[in-house]
Amino acid sequence: MNTSVSFEQQLILLDQRIEKTWADILDNSRLVRAIREGSVSKALYALYMIETFHYTAHNARNQGLVGVRHADNPVYAKFCFEHAAQEVGHEKMALHDVMSLGLKSEVFDMPPALPATEVLIAYLYWISFTGNPLQRLGYSYWAENAYQFITPLITRISEVLALKPAQLTFFIAHSDIDIEHFNEIKLILQRTCKSQADWDAITVVMETSLRLTGNMLEAVYEQYEAWQSGQAPRYDFLHALDQS
Amino acid sequence: MNTSVSFEQQLILLDQRIEKTWADILDNSRLVRAIREGSVSKALYALYMIETFHYTAHNARNQGLVGVRHADNPVYAKFCFEHAAQEVGHEKMALHDVMSLGLKSEVFDMPPALPATEVLIAYLYWISFTGNPLQRLGYSYWAENAYQFITPLITRISEVLALKPAQLTFFIAHSDIDIEHFNEIKLILQRTCKSQADWDAITVVMETSLRLTGNMLEAVYEQYEAWQSGQAPRYDFLHALDQS
Amino acid sequence: MNTSVSFEQQLILLDQRIEKTWADILDNSRLVRAIREGSVSKALYALYMIETFHYTAHNARNQGLVGVRHADNPVYAKFCFEHAAQEVGHEKMALHDVMSLGLKSEVFDMPPALPATEVLIAYLYWISFTGNPLQRLGYSYWAENAYQFITPLITRISEVLALKPAQLTFFIAHSDIDIEHFNEIKLILQRTCKSQADWDAITVVMETSLRLTGNMLEAVYEQYEAWQSGQAPRYDFLHALDQS
Amino acid sequence: MNTSVSFEQQLILLDQRIEKTWADILDNSRLVRAIREGSVSKALYALYMIETFHYTAHNARNQGLVGVRHADNPVYAKFCFEHAAQEVGHEKMALHDVMSLGLKSEVFDMPPALPATEVLIAYLYWISFTGNPLQRLGYSYWAENAYQFITPLITRISEVLALKPAQLTFFIAHSDIDIEHFNEIKLILQRTCKSQADWDAITVVMETSLRLTGNMLEAVYEQYEAWQSGQAPRYDFLHALDQS
Repeated sequence: MNTSVSFEQQLILLDQRIEKTWADILDNSRLVRAIREGSVSKALYALYMIETFHYTAHNARNQGLVGVRHADNPVYAKFCFEHAAQEVGHEKMALHDVMSLGLKSEVFDMPPALPATEVLIAYLYWISFTGNPLQRLGYSYWAENAYQFITPLITRISEVLALKPAQLTFFIAHSDIDIEHFNEIKLILQRTCKSQADWDAITVVMETSLRLTGNMLEAVYEQYEAWQSGQAPRYDFLHALDQS
Repeated sequence: MNTSVSFEQQLILLDQRIEKTWADILDNSRLVRAIREGSVSKALYALYMIETFHYTAHNARNQGLVGVRHADNPVYAKFCFEHAAQEVGHEKMALHDVMSLGLKSEVFDMPPALPATEVLIAYLYWISFTGNPLQRLGYSYWAENAYQFITPLITRISEVLALKPAQLTFFIAHSDIDIEHFNEIKLILQRTCKSQADWDAITVVMETSLRLTGNMLEAVYEQYEAWQSGQAPRYDFLHALDQS
Repeated sequence: MNTSVSFEQQLILLDQRIEKTWADILDNSRLVRAIREGSVSKALYALYMIETFHYTAHNARNQGLVGVRHADNPVYAKFCFEHAAQEVGHEKMALHDVMSLGLKSEVFDMPPALPATEVLIAYLYWISFTGNPLQRLGYSYWAENAYQFITPLITRISEVLALKPAQLTFFIAHSDIDIEHFNEIKLILQRTCKSQADWDAITVVMETSLRLTGNMLEAVYEQYEAWQSGQAPRYDFLHALDQS
Repeated sequence: MNTSVSFEQQLILLDQRIEKTWADILDNSRLVRAIREGSVSKALYALYMIETFHYTAHNARNQGLVGVRHADNPVYAKFCFEHAAQEVGHEKMALHDVMSLGLKSEVFDMPPALPATEVLIAYLYWISFTGNPLQRLGYSYWAENAYQFITPLITRISEVLALKPAQLTFFIAHSDIDIEHFNEIKLILQRTCKSQADWDAITVVMETSLRLTGNMLEAVYEQYEAWQSGQAPRYDFLHALDQS
């Protein structure tokens, strides 16, 4: 691969890699299968949204951290801080959606993030704190463009569980915001990526963070099975959703 | 002091403390005296602007760091990231103004920050990284409201050195921006400061960071004296400004 | 599980968890199978040792970081810093062993860590920087006691590849050091672990870091396959080991 | 100054700079004058030891941080971690000595560090976290060799206040430890300092950290005056020492 690869061609290469990785995840995820087959329950969806709550709470922070490290590049640092400002507090939408499933009158401690989610969070801080300054854009590139893959699943969930829009604030807000964000991501890639080393670092972070997200989805399903067989006492409160 | 002190009264207390501290600095600073007496030279002004360049380069970074630490408070974290985004790259204006004095054709390494400036920078990171989450607002409170104290000095400098507005981009930009910023600071103080402990922490950081800035001004003048007597070889390039 | 579980019983629970996790890894690892079957090549072993070099280079650092965070607990902080001091530079033994395979006259850039190794490194920093102060002991607990699982594999490698002790400095040094270290780990666990929450955090970090190490082993084998089919140009220099 | 300056000559230059800086501090410090004149009180000494407690609590941490940053230099990183291990918990000796003055039966909150002490602490973290890797040795160089300057003052304090050795654990322990430490500092300087840039960075940090310590001494005296005139309510508990 040489440096004469055009910007458009670089994006196509990223897109191809994303599609292949998403295909691996969607084909092998038991959570995805449960959604597609219509066997998803409120508890399973809640388990997923609890992990979404956990990792989302760190997105503004690790995005801001990139700006702190790279304030010598004003265009990029400005992007990082503005993007961080926009991501602040989004985890509260995920939390709202979990509670709206029928947990508002329950008393419980929010379970800590699953290890697979901790690993995703750890990786996002690590690639924000070290290495190629631009590499976190690899995470943004797939995450802000995930709705083509996720929307069919969310639609299916909302049908099966009879969820109203007011119970899907996290996904509705993001599918609106992210179109604009995705254009901003492409613009900042165009303005900042200068070398093949930049594109390589972005590609590695893109694929790795997407695969770690896939691992998180699988861990959600494992936890669901443990919960069903009574081996996940931290999630006992989810039985309040059984009859609803 | 009890918790029934009103918000307006807290601001008055901050303002009184600022006025007293500024008075100490202005009365004792040899740099200020040189400006008021009209004996300021381009080299002395350049020395000051080089330090301004150095500490300004960290302002967006330590402001962003506060957001990274406190993303659990969305209102405040959003303010921190947005404010950081606005501060990005301002050091380049300071650098531009230094160069415009007559250094554009000189070849030199930018001297590192003076120890007094390093101490100011160190302190701003420290209070951003630890302690009361709101305390960095004490720095913003005086810094975004400094132009009443600084503008007369800058006006005098521009007269004595016959500087054009295009050579004063740093101060002109800031005196415009900072009125709006100062209103934002007051608004975020009103929305976030809840306890006397918050106000105490803000007060300590406000006074300490202002005094460290005063120490920096004094160090600039000491360096100027060293330069005049040939004992500051790092600043030899400033002799290009002697005859201009 | 209640707080009356004895210290000895806690260690037994850790040991059982380790054995089960190691069994999963050893049973499913293609690298392990290649070693056991005697089909391991110098290139495959080198690929493994390059990743060992990469993550080992961070062990002293993330161990020291725990001491920096928790200097308020003198017994534990002293342990952390002393342990960090002992771990310094061990990656150079791994590098020496790689080079001794027949690479000393080759000119090459050391390939960066594989993504799976970056994820392990990221996780170890994350659990050192945040969360339960004692949780990194979960990593030490399995890593300093791994030689019962690893020694048979290393013995097999040394037979198949006809390696001399001077080519196995990393493993020989560690199997000597780690017996003493493991006793120190148990002692510090006994002195510092006070609550079930401590043991739970240690258990999660122990299992997660061991599984991430297993993922790294699998990634080594994947990279080996890519290299064999000419799709890993960064490792072209390993062909110098083909005929040796 | 050129690179042919011998190691011994570099140490002489450091020593001359230290002597001059100490002379400035000792000549101008009102705290030092009070000690020399025999007018030091238990409250004044306690105020000093409380600040000593505060900054000492960070010494192991910022020393360890240097090792975390520079683990690529095994000789130096090993020194940093070992030195950090030795510094752990020393603040507890300072606290013990404060309490032994007659405060054991008092109930009080330990006052936070004075701003001047915070500035010293901030600076030591900053120069440990950034800049020349070796520069923190400039702090160690004067701090581990301070007893020639401090011992006469401590002797005078112990006479005036009739303190027993068991009340001076901090200084007695350090004057013993530090002779050995100082030899280690010189040895590590000899093994690691290679360029004039290293010596310059060490010199700046040495002088700056010593001057900030001088500022802390002055702030202690200012606080003492405030306490005497009833304007430092945080230190009211020190009146328990008035009659003792």
